[in-house]
Amino acid sequence: MEATVAITEAQQKKVKPDPETLKFGKTFTDHMFTMDYTSDLGWIQPEIKPYAPVEIDPAAMVFHYSQSVFEGLKAYKNPNGEAVLFRPEENFKRLNRSNKRLSIPPINEELALDYLKQLIELEKDWIPSAEGTSLYIRPFVIATEPSLQVAPAHNYKFFIILSPVGSYYPEGIHPVSIMVEDHFTRAARGGTGTAKTGGNYSAGYNAQAKAASEGHAQVLWLDGVEKKYVEEVGSMNVFFKINGEIVTPQLNDSILQGVTRKSVIELLKHWNIPVSERKIPMQEIFDAYESGELEEAFGSGTAAVISPIGELTWKDSTMIVNGRKTGEVTKSLYQTLTQIQTGKQEDPFGWTVKI
Amino acid sequence: MEATVAITEAQQKKVKPDPETLKFGKTFTDHMFTMDYTSDLGWIQPEIKPYAPVEIDPAAMVFHYSQSVFEGLKAYKNPNGEAVLFRPEENFKRLNRSNKRLSIPPINEELALDYLKQLIELEKDWIPSAEGTSLYIRPFVIATEPSLQVAPAHNYKFFIILSPVGSYYPEGIHPVSIMVEDHFTRAARGGTGTAKTGGNYSAGYNAQAKAASEGHAQVLWLDGVEKKYVEEVGSMNVFFKINGEIVTPQLNDSILQGVTRKSVIELLKHWNIPVSERKIPMQEIFDAYESGELEEAFGSGTAAVISPIGELTWKDSTMIVNGRKTGEVTKSLYQTLTQIQTGKQEDPFGWTVKI
Repeated sequence: MEATVAITEAQQKKVKPDPETLKFGKTFTDHMFTMDYTSDLGWIQPEIKPYAPVEIDPAAMVFHYSQSVFEGLKAYKNPNGEAVLFRPEENFKRLNRSNKRLSIPPINEELALDYLKQLIELEKDWIPSAEGTSLYIRPFVIATEPSLQVAPAHNYKFFIILSPVGSYYPEGIHPVSIMVEDHFTRAARGGTGTAKTGGNYSAGYNAQAKAASEGHAQVLWLDGVEKKYVEEVGSMNVFFKINGEIVTPQLNDSILQGVTRKSVIELLKHWNIPVSERKIPMQEIFDAYESGELEEAFGSGTAAVISPIGELTWKDSTMIVNGRKTGEVTKSLYQTLTQIQTGKQEDPFGWTVKI
Repeated sequence: MEATVAITEAQQKKVKPDPETLKFGKTFTDHMFTMDYTSDLGWIQPEIKPYAPVEIDPAAMVFHYSQSVFEGLKAYKNPNGEAVLFRPEENFKRLNRSNKRLSIPPINEELALDYLKQLIELEKDWIPSAEGTSLYIRPFVIATEPSLQVAPAHNYKFFIILSPVGSYYPEGIHPVSIMVEDHFTRAARGGTGTAKTGGNYSAGYNAQAKAASEGHAQVLWLDGVEKKYVEEVGSMNVFFKINGEIVTPQLNDSILQGVTRKSVIELLKHWNIPVSERKIPMQEIFDAYESGELEEAFGSGTAAVISPIGELTWKDSTMIVNGRKTGEVTKSLYQTLTQIQTGKQEDPFGWTVKI
C-alpha cells in the first residue's frame, strides 16, 4: 500500500552537479518532502514539492530552544541502475527515539519510509553512480510554533531533503589523526547524547577547532562524568582492535546508536571475529599501545562508512596505530559494507531495500 | 552617536492586547530588528522592519546542528512614562560569551544596544504599564547557511523581537514546589551550560514533564558529574538562606551567569546581608532543613525576577521551606528589584538605562 502524498513537480529542474566535484551536503535535489504537526490534528498534509526556502516565524521555538531532531542515511545505485536504501527502518526507529528524548510527537515509521521511497522514486536520477558517491538523505523535525515559553511546542514540521554527495575519500581511504579531548564534553549522562539532536553537534565545534588547529582531523570524546572512558570519535562511533579482539564502547545515554556501528558488530560476528561492547578506559587503549597490542582503530558512521584512525594523541602522548596504515579488518569492513550498500555484493542480512 | 539602521515602518499596526490577559512570549510587536553576517563582509544590513515570517532554506544549519544563541531582558515604563532597560550591557556581554562557546562570530555590543534602543523607541507604545507587566526583549542569532557539514556556518542572522508580557504572578507572588532531578542532566562540565543556547533548554523538557506529572512546578538541577551539587532551578539561578547566610552555587561552565543572580548578590552585599557563592551539596540543604536552619529558598531570572520556593522534593523526602510562605529576604529582593526596574525607587547602582 502506498501512502497518499500530494505531489507538486518542479517546473524547472536544476542542472545536476559534476560527481567529481561534489561536496558533502551543499547541493540539494529538485524536490523535498514536508509534513506538518498540530497538537489537534496530529501529522497532516504530507507533500512532495519543489525544494525551496520555507517561511518561518522568527519566534518559532526551534530558533530559541533547539527542539529538533534529524536522521542521516543514503541511497545508492546498484549495478542494475536501481535505487537501494541501507537499513532505512533503523533510521526511522532512531528518529522516534530521538523524538521521545526531545518531547517531539512520534512519526509513523512505516508511512515515513513510504514517503521517503516516493521521494526517491521521483529523484532517482539524482543518485550518482561513481565509486564512493551516493544520495544523502536528511529527514528532520523542527518545532515551528511561535512562542518563547520554555516548553515543548504544539506545532512541528517534518522534512526530508536529499543531497548528492561525493566520495568521502576522493584520494582513497586513508587513516586520520585524532586528538583525545579532555576538557570539552559532547554529551553528559542523563543528557541528550544518544538522541540525534542539533545541540550535541554545535556543542562540539570548539573542541573540533582546537583539534584542527593542532593538526588533527577529529576529536575523540571521553565520557562527561569522569573523562576516563572512550565514547565517540567526531560524529562517529569508534572501534579498536586489541590483541585480536574488536572492542567498542557499550551503549549508554550519551552514545549515539549508530546504524553503521550495529552493522559492523553484526558483520564481525558473521565472520567469527571476536567483538565486545563494554566500557573502555582511555588508559586501556594507551596500555595496549605500549605493549604493542593496539592493532587497529576506526570510526563508523553513515557519511564515511568506515574511517581508519592512524594516530591518536592523548595528553602528551601520540600513539601510532598500525604504522599509520589501514588495518586488515578495517579494510574488510569498509569493502564489505560499501559493496553490500551499492548492491555489488550479495546481502545475506536483508539490510538493503530496493525501491 | 546613533548607529545607522534602515527603518521600514509597518503599514498596518496590530491591535495591542489587553494587559490583563497577556501570556509570556505569545504576542509580538509591529517591528523587529535584523542584521546578517557573511564570513566575507561581517555583520551587515542592520534594519528595523515589520515583524513577519522569514524565508529560510530547509538546509539552514540552525535546523540541523542547533548553532544558535539567545538573550532575554525587559523594558519597563517608569512613572514618567519613559522606557527603561535593566542592565542591558550585561546581556550583550553574555550574548558574546555564548557566541564564543557556539563558534558564532561576535557582535559589537555597543552597536547592538543602540539598535535595541532604536527599536524600543519605535515600539514604546507596546510597553505595558500595569503592575508586573513589561516588554520582554529577545535578541537571538541563528546559523542560516544551507549546508549539512558538521562545522560552524559562514552565514548568520541576528534578530531582536519584542513581546509584551503579563505579570508572572497574576495572583500575587507565591512559593512553588520543586523536584530535585537526579536522572536527567541539563548541562555537563565542559558542555554548553553557561551559554544561552537552545540545546540546554529542550534537553530539560523530559525532566520538566516528569516533575509536572508529580505535581511540581519546576526541576532543581544537580551537577552532571556527581549528581551531588545544586546547579540551577528550571531556567533560573537558585539561592538558599541557611542560618542567616544566603548561599548560591558558584559559577562554573554548566551554570548560566544570570543578570538577576548578579544583581541579587550585589543587593545583598549593599544591605550587609552575608552572601556566598560556593559549591552546595544537596545533602547540605537537606541537613539544614532537618536542623531547622533552611530559612528561605528562591530562584532568580529575568522572567520571574524572584520566584520563592515553598517545597523541595529530593528522593523520598519533602522539605517545606518557611511554612510554604515567601521569606523576608526573598520578598525584599523581589520588591527592591522590581521597584528599581520600573523606576519607582531610586537606583543607587546605575543599573537602569533610560531610552
